[in-house]
Amino acid sequence: MKKAIVITIGSELLIGQVIDTNSAWLGQQLNELGIEIYRTLTVKDEEHEILHAIDYGFQNADLILMTGGLGPTEDDITKKTIASYFNDQLVFHEKTYLWIEKLFKKFGRTPMDVHKQQAYMPESCHIIENKMGTAPGMLFEKENRILLAMPGVPYEMKHIFSEGLKPRLESLNLSNSIKHRTIRTVGMGESKIAEIIQDLIVQFPPDLSIAFLPSSGSVRIRLTSTGESNNEDILNLFTEKISTRLGDLVYGYDETTLEASIGQLAKAKGIKIATAESCTGGLIGHSIVGVPGASAYFEGTITAYSYELKQAILNVSKKTLTDFGAVSEEVVLEMLAGCLDATYADVAISVSGIAGPGGGTPEKPVGTIWMAWGNKEVQMTKKLSLSKSREVNIKYTSVYALNMIRKFLMEQ
Amino acid sequence: MKKAIVITIGSELLIGQVIDTNSAWLGQQLNELGIEIYRTLTVKDEEHEILHAIDYGFQNADLILMTGGLGPTEDDITKKTIASYFNDQLVFHEKTYLWIEKLFKKFGRTPMDVHKQQAYMPESCHIIENKMGTAPGMLFEKENRILLAMPGVPYEMKHIFSEGLKPRLESLNLSNSIKHRTIRTVGMGESKIAEIIQDLIVQFPPDLSIAFLPSSGSVRIRLTSTGESNNEDILNLFTEKISTRLGDLVYGYDETTLEASIGQLAKAKGIKIATAESCTGGLIGHSIVGVPGASAYFEGTITAYSYELKQAILNVSKKTLTDFGAVSEEVVLEMLAGCLDATYADVAISVSGIAGPGGGTPEKPVGTIWMAWGNKEVQMTKKLSLSKSREVNIKYTSVYALNMIRKFLMEQ
Repeated sequence: MKKAIVITIGSELLIGQVIDTNSAWLGQQLNELGIEIYRTLTVKDEEHEILHAIDYGFQNADLILMTGGLGPTEDDITKKTIASYFNDQLVFHEKTYLWIEKLFKKFGRTPMDVHKQQAYMPESCHIIENKMGTAPGMLFEKENRILLAMPGVPYEMKHIFSEGLKPRLESLNLSNSIKHRTIRTVGMGESKIAEIIQDLIVQFPPDLSIAFLPSSGSVRIRLTSTGESNNEDILNLFTEKISTRLGDLVYGYDETTLEASIGQLAKAKGIKIATAESCTGGLIGHSIVGVPGASAYFEGTITAYSYELKQAILNVSKKTLTDFGAVSEEVVLEMLAGCLDATYADVAISVSGIAGPGGGTPEKPVGTIWMAWGNKEVQMTKKLSLSKSREVNIKYTSVYALNMIRKFLMEQ
Repeated sequence: MKKAIVITIGSELLIGQVIDTNSAWLGQQLNELGIEIYRTLTVKDEEHEILHAIDYGFQNADLILMTGGLGPTEDDITKKTIASYFNDQLVFHEKTYLWIEKLFKKFGRTPMDVHKQQAYMPESCHIIENKMGTAPGMLFEKENRILLAMPGVPYEMKHIFSEGLKPRLESLNLSNSIKHRTIRTVGMGESKIAEIIQDLIVQFPPDLSIAFLPSSGSVRIRLTSTGESNNEDILNLFTEKISTRLGDLVYGYDETTLEASIGQLAKAKGIKIATAESCTGGLIGHSIVGVPGASAYFEGTITAYSYELKQAILNVSKKTLTDFGAVSEEVVLEMLAGCLDATYADVAISVSGIAGPGGGTPEKPVGTIWMAWGNKEVQMTKKLSLSKSREVNIKYTSVYALNMIRKFLMEQ
């Protein structure tokens, strides 16, 4: 098991109705297992295309992970196409049918004919139960190569991979050949970071490489070691050197998110957090809540989109709103004070801005964002001048705000 | 220009550190332009892999859209690899350099050597200015085929495609050959929908096909017509037949989101909306704010994660919290009343639940969600019993809640 290809099937992916998140998740899993993800291919749910994909997969890899096209409706043709590829026939699989029946009973329903079809499975495959849905996984083996076909619904796919294949891949103990370490930073651009650590990069041994992954105000620095021995030590050494150089730009490693690093700080210091948001629509708070266990340190968010709500709950004065406008240093400071009062939080952040596309003026164009953060004793403010795109402005502002919370918590 | 392949470059995509959203966006664009998106391929940023991808692209398509690997750091090798593919050399492009210099001046900085490298461009390509960043787009033509290489940063890629290639593709007037129409529904599973409209599907002419795209409580039904003539009429006819059959399960068409349909209803009826959230962490409100112009009908969100905040801002009584627990019908009704009071909204929804993975009890396992919605006169409640996954629970609950808001607005 050296090279894997992920094949995702579905016209909805190609015409952009659905964003393919399955490839990324499978990529993470394989990477942790020490299996190289060689390529990812997306094809339509058409027989010719699926056959091409299987051929391409077997020519280029020894593990093919396939998702999509196993549902009960007539556009789902993956199962019969794979069966025809292996010259296999579909036979009734009673265990699968009983499971489908049970699942339907739970919701007070009876399986329809289309669901009975789902219990017909290729004879030569190993069937992997799907406890999250009606379509089981199918594992085929051919000349030491494996093809696993899974449904496209992400949580069904994750379940089938984790239960049906992962233990076997784990037992191969491949995880020493390629090692990645990711240093996660926020607050500086990739080229500036590259410049600062350039003299460290030139010290890299030949089997160590670096990549920079920028997104919305943050940059992940990925170190990859392909050496057979000592790669753990080499990764540790350069991770430490780079981290020391970058100081508090570094908020975490590998899969640690910015909001998870905030959670660790807040829990360790016994600090409760709240947010008062306007243009970000609650995204900062929502990001914080995405971390399991956030209830230990997160009080809540007041998304005061209207003038009235800013006054009523956050106690922003009408005069301040009229004199300076909702997007102003004065208003975010009052929002911050109001948020700390209303929520009993120790530390809060407030944001008000013009996300666009409408609402800009010559003095305050789209992309003008004010934020304030701190506690009852110390408050800080910042004005951002961002771009014209609503989506980019909301996302960038949230990351910036989360970083200000993090840095403030570090100083407490 | 009949077939296109999208090639995305970057190990970060393969190991799942970054989810590829560029393919989906380009797929949408090409689909609207009437160009078939044939396949999508993701490869590593290695010379051999990029060369394979270009070969694969030219063998299978006449339009190759490529993203990634054009940044200033040393892992970015796409430009020199493409140049070598076309036996081309890199020459200094003054206009690009002046642009980079200007961009840096804006931020009070001077370009570094790595940025000067970005101004060296393949001699034979047509350079497409990048007004959003430092790396321009590169358009190559070879025997009536086109390859366009763009940076991987989504908003830079979108800008370059829109300015540099889209007008030319539009002028080809291809948009009549394949037509899609999407009927967007919420509130019923795909197999049940398929059953209800089965007799309509059997009436389809041979060049009309259907696909079902389920996700988190909603199902998009995509009709595709590949006929040369009358396909607009046929799509309209069956869209209407299916919509009539499905009634208020249908909330919109094509790119209309559930939150956009709420926006249309709220604006038309002059109704102001607010949300009071707990386990969803503000996602319902954040979804509503994602629609440009939401300030016309959205008051705001109170994400009351703690008991204290539920009491202080939403006026939930301590006794109700103690007697019934935060996840109860009684509490969501008080949250709803409190939200309507505090926010001046006409219609509100409140949600409290156990998203997991922690916090479950035998009586209220992970996945138990209560919600209440309505106005000051009429209130309704619903209990959901969802799965074990935090992410799925939060997402599904938000979609369910948005649908309850939509249905309530329809009745006003």
